[in-house]
Amino acid sequence: MNPSATQYPLDASRMPTHWYNIAADLPRPAPAVLHPGTLQPIGPDDLAPLFPMELIMQEVSTEREVPIPEPVREVFKLWRPAPLFRAHRLEKALGTPARIYYKYEGVSPAGSHKPNTAVPQAWYNAQAGIKKLTTETGAGQWGSSLAFAGNLFGLDVTVFQVRVSYDQKPYRRALMETYGARCIASPSMETQYGRSVLAGRPDHPGSLGIAISEAVEIAATHDDTKYALGSVLNHVLMHQTIIGQEAMLQLEMAGDDPDVIVGCTGGGSNFAGIAFPFIGQQLRGGGKTKQRRIVAVEPAACPSLTRGKYAYDFGDTGHMTPLTKMHTLGSTFTPPGFHAGGLRYHGMAPMVSHLRELGLLEATAYHQVACFEAGVLFARAEGIVPAPEANHAVKGAIVEALRCKAEGKSEVILFNLCGHGHFDMAAYSNYFAGKLTDQSYSEEELAMALSGLPSVPA
Amino acid sequence: MNPSATQYPLDASRMPTHWYNIAADLPRPAPAVLHPGTLQPIGPDDLAPLFPMELIMQEVSTEREVPIPEPVREVFKLWRPAPLFRAHRLEKALGTPARIYYKYEGVSPAGSHKPNTAVPQAWYNAQAGIKKLTTETGAGQWGSSLAFAGNLFGLDVTVFQVRVSYDQKPYRRALMETYGARCIASPSMETQYGRSVLAGRPDHPGSLGIAISEAVEIAATHDDTKYALGSVLNHVLMHQTIIGQEAMLQLEMAGDDPDVIVGCTGGGSNFAGIAFPFIGQQLRGGGKTKQRRIVAVEPAACPSLTRGKYAYDFGDTGHMTPLTKMHTLGSTFTPPGFHAGGLRYHGMAPMVSHLRELGLLEATAYHQVACFEAGVLFARAEGIVPAPEANHAVKGAIVEALRCKAEGKSEVILFNLCGHGHFDMAAYSNYFAGKLTDQSYSEEELAMALSGLPSVPA
Repeated sequence: MNPSATQYPLDASRMPTHWYNIAADLPRPAPAVLHPGTLQPIGPDDLAPLFPMELIMQEVSTEREVPIPEPVREVFKLWRPAPLFRAHRLEKALGTPARIYYKYEGVSPAGSHKPNTAVPQAWYNAQAGIKKLTTETGAGQWGSSLAFAGNLFGLDVTVFQVRVSYDQKPYRRALMETYGARCIASPSMETQYGRSVLAGRPDHPGSLGIAISEAVEIAATHDDTKYALGSVLNHVLMHQTIIGQEAMLQLEMAGDDPDVIVGCTGGGSNFAGIAFPFIGQQLRGGGKTKQRRIVAVEPAACPSLTRGKYAYDFGDTGHMTPLTKMHTLGSTFTPPGFHAGGLRYHGMAPMVSHLRELGLLEATAYHQVACFEAGVLFARAEGIVPAPEANHAVKGAIVEALRCKAEGKSEVILFNLCGHGHFDMAAYSNYFAGKLTDQSYSEEELAMALSGLPSVPA
Repeated sequence: MNPSATQYPLDASRMPTHWYNIAADLPRPAPAVLHPGTLQPIGPDDLAPLFPMELIMQEVSTEREVPIPEPVREVFKLWRPAPLFRAHRLEKALGTPARIYYKYEGVSPAGSHKPNTAVPQAWYNAQAGIKKLTTETGAGQWGSSLAFAGNLFGLDVTVFQVRVSYDQKPYRRALMETYGARCIASPSMETQYGRSVLAGRPDHPGSLGIAISEAVEIAATHDDTKYALGSVLNHVLMHQTIIGQEAMLQLEMAGDDPDVIVGCTGGGSNFAGIAFPFIGQQLRGGGKTKQRRIVAVEPAACPSLTRGKYAYDFGDTGHMTPLTKMHTLGSTFTPPGFHAGGLRYHGMAPMVSHLRELGLLEATAYHQVACFEAGVLFARAEGIVPAPEANHAVKGAIVEALRCKAEGKSEVILFNLCGHGHFDMAAYSNYFAGKLTDQSYSEEELAMALSGLPSVPA
């Protein structure tokens, strides 16, 4: 047996110089973002309290290529180009004729793909003279990435961390503090919204939606402070396209072209990062380029793409954000405490949702125990222990590889291994101890959560 | 301020093809290894119960270059060549005219330099038809690395983990189990020595010396089982020289040549890895090559090189190993529970000890609080959070950089950042909470521990 994966190292001189903006190639544009009061499309000025103008212009841009600023590319050189591997041993372990490749984003200092957008967001804010950034974090991947990036450009970073995660995962908090960030358990007494939540329930465990509301409130009410989001928004997804662009060049080196592309989806950013450049290639090529299957894998316990409704909804629980049309489980939906904290969000990126409606991608959902089983198989074959979020992509890729085996097809499968699991070994401990459970929602429970969607005329 | 470090990526085609064996260049050989019963030099056959013959021959080899087997180099390509960075931001933060470079070994799947020797050790054992490996681990870095490597070559790996670490650090254990290894709290009921220790004290917290004795006992009494050690031995140190050889090539790319080389020392392997190729160059060049300072940094709470005695001693507490001449605190010395578990060993690699006696390196010791302070400064400047062990090297490099500042000298400092701290954030939490303490030993305590050294005629 081949003892290990083959790596296709990309020379630093070939690191992409531009982000890819899929808005340039859409057959029809995504639905407008609406002001929650007027229900009219919002303009750049409506977002100005929260984001610097450069990022707002990226959010609404239809330019195909947006240049990556030189100082951002300099920081990227700490870990980029990220490696692409051919998973020889996984293929052998599965006995599949498929050729499996994975792009590995766990090489960043924060251990995931999140710094790909944290660094440019911090840089654009610093360029705009902003002094402080606020954000929210669940498991801590995004909070630690923004802490890392903010520190590099001299910004004070305040992270509202979901209370239950703040208490149970002090190590991610220690990482944020190591980078100099301030970490606050949410709901907190530091915001009006936090105080209102705590008034109703002093021991509230928090949620990502609540933490977003708190971070947004601080940014909206302080002139020197802006807000940063780690997923969902167009500009965030675009920043991640460096992943797929690099993978394209590396697959060329390998002499292969993917038939199936797999990524896990929470808010949608790592999935968009690997998939959008390939989808764009298809859109521009019309029927002339290879038609690839694009597979989004989500947790069955938080199934926005597979069981949510495509509707206008708020991005947060406090209803401070604009309304976006997306696959949603309802902004008051509280997913259970499964281990892929990065996938625990009630909605899906509007751009990913739009592509789903256009029939440009498939979605599937798996339970966490099956995903951990896949992750352990992967770790033993390839040597890298995936983050619980990434285990969903591993599971999706394995399902495709086994389908190829059953059908006798030697397809090329590419997936994004968006982070390592070194911060998540407690979850693996629980898995080995048989303590993980799978939770589902009944149709009634989902209908209840969706009944609170805002009413927007078609 | 330059936003980040400069990386000097080494093309995969330039990964070293041979290990460097410093035994070839010594002005006089290291003292013989002695049989504890006869006090006579041991031969290869004496080691045969514990190690495959290829590794034993490497242990006693005086060939300057030992080829790295192709399957081992294939595995190395998962993370090697490892990056070398110029620490621009750290230099600016210190205001030093020194140029600081660091070699980063945290990119391996286990997060440290340990797989550099775990992979060849597993490979040579598999080639020799061995089915099982035993070893010990303290903090878990070595155990997880051998679990990773053994799994790649189809070996069953059993790790005796020091009880206190087994209980307090379940995540490292989960990592070992993810790689399919069996992890046993030591002292255990699985060995005669373990049972004897537990008979004396049923709640014994364990020590590295006890765990070594248990692992050695299993290997010595089972034909299909060998033992693997993560540091101290000549062949282990030699396997790490790929670090220094790569660094040499990368510094050539940077157009620089180090004046000072710094590494942290526990058993001595990562230090040897970065330093030996440079020391060898000096030894071969006589007075004609640049004379560099080589600085070993150890924890003040386990100060074998700076306060230990250069004497023959056992490598384990159960006194099953041969006697080697080394700087030792006595095999019954129990260092306090500081956070750099990888540096908590009573002895020092005989080869490192010998070089110290030859005047070819300096040694210094720092307390852990100062090392964490240095590590946090480094993380904020460079973005990478070092392991607590590596913080000692960071501290040593910062001390040299500040000396350069005081003296107005723009020397070139190279240090080895041997692992990331993602598994060690609890230690950072304690540091931020002000809960870390510094412990020292009185001369009387050290004298007491040294009074039990075996008596070996000069």
